Amino acid sequence: MGIEFTKWQGCGNDFVLVDDRSESIKDPAELSRKMCDRHYGIGADGLIIIRPSDKADTRMRIYNTDGSEAEMCGNGIRCFARWVYELGLVPVEEFTVETGAGILVPKIIKENGRITGVRVDMGQPVLDAEKIPTKGFGTGRVVDKTIEVLGETYHVTCVSMGNPHCVVLWDDLSTLDIEKLGPAFENHPAFPNRVNTEFVSVRDKNHVRMRVWERGAAVTMACGTGACATLTACVLNDRTERQAEIELDGGKLFIEWSEKDNHIYMTGPAEEVYKGTYI
Amino acid sequence: MGIEFTKWQGCGNDFVLVDDRSESIKDPAELSRKMCDRHYGIGADGLIIIRPSDKADTRMRIYNTDGSEAEMCGNGIRCFARWVYELGLVPVEEFTVETGAGILVPKIIKENGRITGVRVDMGQPVLDAEKIPTKGFGTGRVVDKTIEVLGETYHVTCVSMGNPHCVVLWDDLSTLDIEKLGPAFENHPAFPNRVNTEFVSVRDKNHVRMRVWERGAAVTMACGTGACATLTACVLNDRTERQAEIELDGGKLFIEWSEKDNHIYMTGPAEEVYKGTYI
Repeated sequence: MGIEFTKWQGCGNDFVLVDDRSESIKDPAELSRKMCDRHYGIGADGLIIIRPSDKADTRMRIYNTDGSEAEMCGNGIRCFARWVYELGLVPVEEFTVETGAGILVPKIIKENGRITGVRVDMGQPVLDAEKIPTKGFGTGRVVDKTIEVLGETYHVTCVSMGNPHCVVLWDDLSTLDIEKLGPAFENHPAFPNRVNTEFVSVRDKNHVRMRVWERGAAVTMACGTGACATLTACVLNDRTERQAEIELDGGKLFIEWSEKDNHIYMTGPAEEVYKGTYI
Repeated sequence: MGIEFTKWQGCGNDFVLVDDRSESIKDPAELSRKMCDRHYGIGADGLIIIRPSDKADTRMRIYNTDGSEAEMCGNGIRCFARWVYELGLVPVEEFTVETGAGILVPKIIKENGRITGVRVDMGQPVLDAEKIPTKGFGTGRVVDKTIEVLGETYHVTCVSMGNPHCVVLWDDLSTLDIEKLGPAFENHPAFPNRVNTEFVSVRDKNHVRMRVWERGAAVTMACGTGACATLTACVLNDRTERQAEIELDGGKLFIEWSEKDNHIYMTGPAEEVYKGTYI
């Protein structure tokens, strides 16, 4: 018998996708644990399933490798959106998706009729010190403030994209010891909910290189919310324009901070790698 | 179009298998690098392809994740053998396979008509100190000899199964710091070609728990030749009978050292996980 699936990746963040509009998967948590195992299963960063929605055009549920359900994932929703579009389940290039983080509106991006990526509205950046949350930087925005980590002083800008980020401008990333600094930032008392830290080298007004230490996950190839926080911080420090390409270890994301609605828009790749039948 | 493949694992060692009897894959090294990538590809420890043979019933070629060709792999050939048998490419349960290590004769093991595993002849263990190779233990066998590693004295037995192994009996493996000891053994001057080290706790005459530090690969879930070396060492130290179950991190292997032909026979699992089409 087996379960039909398709395997996708966006910036190296990889997912098993299953069409479960019939709601026949009874225990998606257990299925995710089995399928995502990189030795005994298919191997992936998460399982994403299509479910019917009575609020939106379609519904995405996403499970982590440990079986827990995630609210949202920037790289994951691009893969999901492109797949449901290619399956013909949604009639237009901009449509609504019910997620654990509310209803989102991804848009399929085409050039000369070919799909080149997917754009996702990532919402408004939160800049208020208490709401990020941070401690010890006072009230208001945390822009270009100093913090002492492992005996050195760093200039940081903090942003929440639903999760907390600390952005550190860094001239030459080849000098960065991220394995040492990442956990020191993550567990610093200035961040009561811990923090994701982006180390960022600005190349020019529209190009930025970023490396990320994710809270609870160490170095990762790509962090969508981290790229959004990075662009926000670069704008607040007058280092880039309101739209720039962010180059991560796993690929490139194009981030725009709209002046119109104050929302951050993330555009990036979503690629199918193979289709399969899980036995 | 896409390439049809099937994904298998044996003791957690996982492989992409492709039927290329038509010899249409022009650059298997490049294909292996792409397919084995765990983020942008299918993800596997290696690519195995079926090729026609004029010397044996079938031919296995196996490629590492870096594109280099391996001569043989104990976990890989079990997957290969079961697949070609299930495909009906070989007519009997014991057949010949051309490999980079010569012609091997795997045997499909059934219980009540169901396939439970695959047995592989792993050849004769090499016990001569110079041939393993080892240095400083004198000539002849290296059985229960002492070696100093990181300031402590250990009793070791050394065996080559085509690759060098150092087996260390260890009462309680929960006390083992393999990340520290493994590389210290690997690079010890007693082993001019470096060494794979098995830390082995004997439960009874037919049951052994083993953990392995593989040369150039760190801790792995399963090492077929390591399990063979372990059984050999346990017999030479009069700790087990000539057949025993070896429990590795990734699963169990049944090893027998035949008195008839002095060969080591390894029997273990080979499981298909999913079929797919690579895009």
